[in-house]
Amino acid sequence: MVQGVIKGQTRAIAKAISLIERESIRASDLLRELFPHTGKAYLVGITGPPGAGKSTLTNQIVKVWRKQGKKVGVIAVDPTSPFSGGAILGDRIRMNDLNTDPGVFIRSLASRGSLGGLSPAVYDTALILDAAGFEYIIIETVGVGQTEVEIVELADTTVVVTVPEAGDDIQTFKAGIMEIGDLFVVNKGDRPGTAKMKLLIENMLDLVQLEWRPPVLVSIADKGEGIEEIVDQIERHHQYLAISARLAQDRKKALIKKISQRLHNLFQQNIISKIFTSSEFDQVLTQILKRESDPFTEIDRLVQKYCPWLYESNE
Amino acid sequence: MVQGVIKGQTRAIAKAISLIERESIRASDLLRELFPHTGKAYLVGITGPPGAGKSTLTNQIVKVWRKQGKKVGVIAVDPTSPFSGGAILGDRIRMNDLNTDPGVFIRSLASRGSLGGLSPAVYDTALILDAAGFEYIIIETVGVGQTEVEIVELADTTVVVTVPEAGDDIQTFKAGIMEIGDLFVVNKGDRPGTAKMKLLIENMLDLVQLEWRPPVLVSIADKGEGIEEIVDQIERHHQYLAISARLAQDRKKALIKKISQRLHNLFQQNIISKIFTSSEFDQVLTQILKRESDPFTEIDRLVQKYCPWLYESNE
Repeated sequence: MVQGVIKGQTRAIAKAISLIERESIRASDLLRELFPHTGKAYLVGITGPPGAGKSTLTNQIVKVWRKQGKKVGVIAVDPTSPFSGGAILGDRIRMNDLNTDPGVFIRSLASRGSLGGLSPAVYDTALILDAAGFEYIIIETVGVGQTEVEIVELADTTVVVTVPEAGDDIQTFKAGIMEIGDLFVVNKGDRPGTAKMKLLIENMLDLVQLEWRPPVLVSIADKGEGIEEIVDQIERHHQYLAISARLAQDRKKALIKKISQRLHNLFQQNIISKIFTSSEFDQVLTQILKRESDPFTEIDRLVQKYCPWLYESNE
Repeated sequence: MVQGVIKGQTRAIAKAISLIERESIRASDLLRELFPHTGKAYLVGITGPPGAGKSTLTNQIVKVWRKQGKKVGVIAVDPTSPFSGGAILGDRIRMNDLNTDPGVFIRSLASRGSLGGLSPAVYDTALILDAAGFEYIIIETVGVGQTEVEIVELADTTVVVTVPEAGDDIQTFKAGIMEIGDLFVVNKGDRPGTAKMKLLIENMLDLVQLEWRPPVLVSIADKGEGIEEIVDQIERHHQYLAISARLAQDRKKALIKKISQRLHNLFQQNIISKIFTSSEFDQVLTQILKRESDPFTEIDRLVQKYCPWLYESNE
């Protein structure tokens, strides 16, 4: 499978991603072997509210890169119920006209791992596509709070898409999304309010001192208008990151995040399977509920037993 | 301060909560001392989309309980920017007519702790209000994904509030919120579409086999209509939980969650301060980025060093 992925064989890639999604133990071995072949792809995050036309925009951006002869991977992160965990959008209903192009690989993933937060599968899928020689990888998400923040931590360039009518929601917009965009796009730019929306974003950006001033662009994705400009600006941001050495810094941060998240998950899964299901712990719970002990004392005991270094003083 | 809280003195309670919010080390000692005095309060979660009238409804429910002579605490969990962390709604602009009643304590808290997820301060504030003799504690949140799920894990009864017009968003509604309500309220029930919305929720509940069938009620909170029925149904659910022994089970689950979250946070904070900032780890990162090592091998090494029991086989 490793060789198949490196050669960019669609079936091998699809099988590798499925392995990761099932959180199989073999997935770690696979990723370990693929890792030396990664680090070449450029990751672009595309986020924004539902209905902003992100899929259409993604579709169009992919086409521009394809015309330039680049291989493009798309990871569509779908919002999921915290309970069901399944992806709402299927791969089949997306981007039909790109489906037969071997230079494009599209995959939908559920947004949340079992422990909340962005699914580790998104990072791992990006690694696989990277190893498979995809030069650009788009990670497309619906903006719903924490997820889009984690996309930023993963993507090299983050494109925030909105629509003219989103003006009313600008307060919410301001609170979270303003800080994460490297590039803003007002899509559906043939609708009323486009100029106003663009100005609104520009004004908000005026309030922040940034080394990189995010451009605010207008597109009409379903007519293919404004797409080349978006692609040019992504490339300009790429250049900026490379020259300012921020690309390396950001990727280091993403790596720390990845390691931290994986340790976190391991820890969490294991305190459940190894500690919380023991009869000893059940007795402790009963004592706490009877008010014969308290959670704070018992947490101290657990830490002393399982992670004594947590309480050692720094240095 | 412990004595002040137990006596229900407003100033002591406010100071205790502030201590918790600042995540002071003294907060743990305080909670440890207060814990034996807790376990008597009944926790009600109120959640729903922005603009559903949750604050007004909360206000009215508080008034009914006050008429019955009960002391009521309200914890308003405010949506916050993932970056700024501040609470948007202040306490001052809420429920002015209840502000002078010493039998009511209202506090706004930011929804997210520094590590994402529901702030541990919400659980701890509930403990303080419990120790202070508040018989009902309402935790009010804006429904935004993960947060409302965590409220459910904390609250004994969860009330999901919606409005007649929310029908269009019913798919989203269905995905997450349907599973968490013990009680549904269509508020602003004098608007068109009320009966349709009620029917829609009833139909969706028909699809699920539940031991407790959540009642679907209609209210007009700003006119005080339908409130007594909501309070009655909360009480009926309380009785159901008590008789079916589910109250004890649910509280045990909430305790596990609490302990797990706190261990999690300790772990997370400390892998950052003790591992990730070391020069040794920085070298490892550099090696990975040069593709001389890979994250999967390094994660194994970290686990072996810091938490070897994570990799021990079960039993």
